[in-house]
Amino acid sequence: MKIIEGGVTAAQGFEAAGVAAAIKYQDRKDMAMVYSRTPCKAAGVFTSNVVKAAPVRWDKEVVAHSPYVQAVIVNSGIANAATGGQGYDCCRRTAEKTAELVGISADAVLVASTGVIGSQLPIDRILAGVEKLAADKEDTQEAGTMAAEAIMTTDTVSKQAAAQIELGGRTVTVGGMCKGAGMIHPNMCTMLGFVTTDIAISKELLQEALSEDVIDTFNMISVDGDTSTNDTLVVLSNGMAGNPEITVKNEDYEKFKEALHYVNETLAKMMAGDGEGATALFETKVIHAATKQEARILSRSVIGSNLCKAAIYGHDANFGRFLCALGYSGVNFDPDKVELYFENNKKSMLIYKDGMAADYSEAEASQILASPEVRVLVDMHMGDAESTAWGCDLSYDYVKINADYRS
Amino acid sequence: MKIIEGGVTAAQGFEAAGVAAAIKYQDRKDMAMVYSRTPCKAAGVFTSNVVKAAPVRWDKEVVAHSPYVQAVIVNSGIANAATGGQGYDCCRRTAEKTAELVGISADAVLVASTGVIGSQLPIDRILAGVEKLAADKEDTQEAGTMAAEAIMTTDTVSKQAAAQIELGGRTVTVGGMCKGAGMIHPNMCTMLGFVTTDIAISKELLQEALSEDVIDTFNMISVDGDTSTNDTLVVLSNGMAGNPEITVKNEDYEKFKEALHYVNETLAKMMAGDGEGATALFETKVIHAATKQEARILSRSVIGSNLCKAAIYGHDANFGRFLCALGYSGVNFDPDKVELYFENNKKSMLIYKDGMAADYSEAEASQILASPEVRVLVDMHMGDAESTAWGCDLSYDYVKINADYRS
Repeated sequence: MKIIEGGVTAAQGFEAAGVAAAIKYQDRKDMAMVYSRTPCKAAGVFTSNVVKAAPVRWDKEVVAHSPYVQAVIVNSGIANAATGGQGYDCCRRTAEKTAELVGISADAVLVASTGVIGSQLPIDRILAGVEKLAADKEDTQEAGTMAAEAIMTTDTVSKQAAAQIELGGRTVTVGGMCKGAGMIHPNMCTMLGFVTTDIAISKELLQEALSEDVIDTFNMISVDGDTSTNDTLVVLSNGMAGNPEITVKNEDYEKFKEALHYVNETLAKMMAGDGEGATALFETKVIHAATKQEARILSRSVIGSNLCKAAIYGHDANFGRFLCALGYSGVNFDPDKVELYFENNKKSMLIYKDGMAADYSEAEASQILASPEVRVLVDMHMGDAESTAWGCDLSYDYVKINADYRS
Repeated sequence: MKIIEGGVTAAQGFEAAGVAAAIKYQDRKDMAMVYSRTPCKAAGVFTSNVVKAAPVRWDKEVVAHSPYVQAVIVNSGIANAATGGQGYDCCRRTAEKTAELVGISADAVLVASTGVIGSQLPIDRILAGVEKLAADKEDTQEAGTMAAEAIMTTDTVSKQAAAQIELGGRTVTVGGMCKGAGMIHPNMCTMLGFVTTDIAISKELLQEALSEDVIDTFNMISVDGDTSTNDTLVVLSNGMAGNPEITVKNEDYEKFKEALHYVNETLAKMMAGDGEGATALFETKVIHAATKQEARILSRSVIGSNLCKAAIYGHDANFGRFLCALGYSGVNFDPDKVELYFENNKKSMLIYKDGMAADYSEAEASQILASPEVRVLVDMHMGDAESTAWGCDLSYDYVKINADYRS
């Protein structure tokens, strides 16, 4: 696998655009389009929240029942959630307009929204935005970046990743973009993520690869514990790489999963590190857990704890909070057997062992916690399973951003 | 039932004291004692965290196996959690010293600690503190207040409540104190709570009344979602009221439960409203839920959401966040049937109905959210069950307090 630059336009045959449509923000891009020159197979995972935004309901139908997908229209600023029949109608009209402009069927168009819940979309401006997008779309890397920028809300950086593999002498590319920042605690998937690939693969295996991979990527991050109403992750594959179509779980399938995993994990980590108000990426790796599921629960419990997050922000080696978060996770263990380490890219420091504090230097521990990427390593000494979760610290700015969000 | 002033010394035969022992803080009270002149039956509920502080392990033994309990020693500043064998030894020595000074058995002494996890208690200062407490203890209301003040950590006010009932011509009193502020998300009970009563009741019914009542009081509050290693709630009954001993669930038992519920609920609400950095008590009442358990899950999900808490802090009627928190709670429901109201002590305002925003005034809604006690009323339109949960808003000061806690 080769890591390359780019995002949703990295794979062959995909175009994108990002334009300013004055949906809620002024003077910034707020609508994006992803388009494939040929029909795609689509796989998707969506929020588990009972309150599902209108575009989530639309997309679930399309992914499940449409023969193919060829375009995605996204807007930022307004989530189109808690908007009743009017909201769903807006999805339909957006898809119809897009279909008419690019000459495809309306049920081949996915839509996605992110932003404030409870407001109606300004349909006239949405439709005008679709016209601009359809006119602007290109297959360049710049066009992919424009799209990645247009889907941002409180994100501070746009998020893209891409990788290539060789299958049967053909180069296959997987690229994606996502947005995160707040209301991030994905359950079945993330806020908004779009992955494109020119691989030839059956729809069933595309969905299986995606569903399996989100468990240890997007579902392992949390910014604030709030699972959004709009979480959507979609993968489109148009087959243009010309590889022998993957219809069974062979070696090619494993190579594809590796590339997909790289893109998903990279985007997920970018999302965690760019959480609202974040000053650091806060990773927790649990090793030697009894089962994989317990490793996941333990690592997620730590990165989800407000007190652990505030300790990272304060560079305070208050290890009891990490131990406490393991303890209330619901997993049973013997605290006397656990070892805790604080780590950054250069150092690893033993903090807790044999049921009490290890003999460590507070100053050095604090220095580690001041790194832009902080890892807490937890050795459970129970078995062979491991898992990693990613979050961010809890800062004044998180509160500021969310107390002032709509004002 | 009559609500009265006072706390742990309100009931007959109970004494208390609060002294400065320099455990961690300087120039403030940090050790407390509760003492009964006669032997008490004891009931307790303790943290469900796998990582249990040494005093929690000590107390569970005492409540389960000691024939009677007569004293409680509490310190604030250091939690005596993650302290290995040395930490447990400290509990034993504290109990032995207390026992020697007041002439009881060491296994009749409960101990409790609250503060930073992972530091060892200064045993010499603890034992010196016990001497002062044993010398100072009194049965006055002031002594009860001194004790309530001594157990505070980041609490801004001390927390006491008391009530009286009449049983068989005798006045029975129930009084209590607690401390909360951070790492508050009780599961089986709260950070530290002590309730005393002069009622005559069997140990079994005392425990049953307590265990039942915490479900809808202390277990329904959350400050930050972190279930502490030290959560302890203990009730001591010395029988001095002289009522006919309650040994079956008769009318007297129901009256006692009412008084106990008043004291527990009042203390729990005080703890929520005085959460770290809080500017408001944030109550969520769910009505017409399908089952009591679903009503509890729904109301707890809303008061536990960082985004809802930040909206309260910002006085932002961003109702989608409340709907979102109901949606990811795990309870299934039809969002189109739910109604949301924002309320304070004077007004109730319909915010969401029929799957979309109601026609409300943003300015008036914001005014309601600026009240010191804010209630979100959720009508599920599914059944007859209801539940209330209490939390607080999320402010800059929460982050400040927890980023700077040990420094």
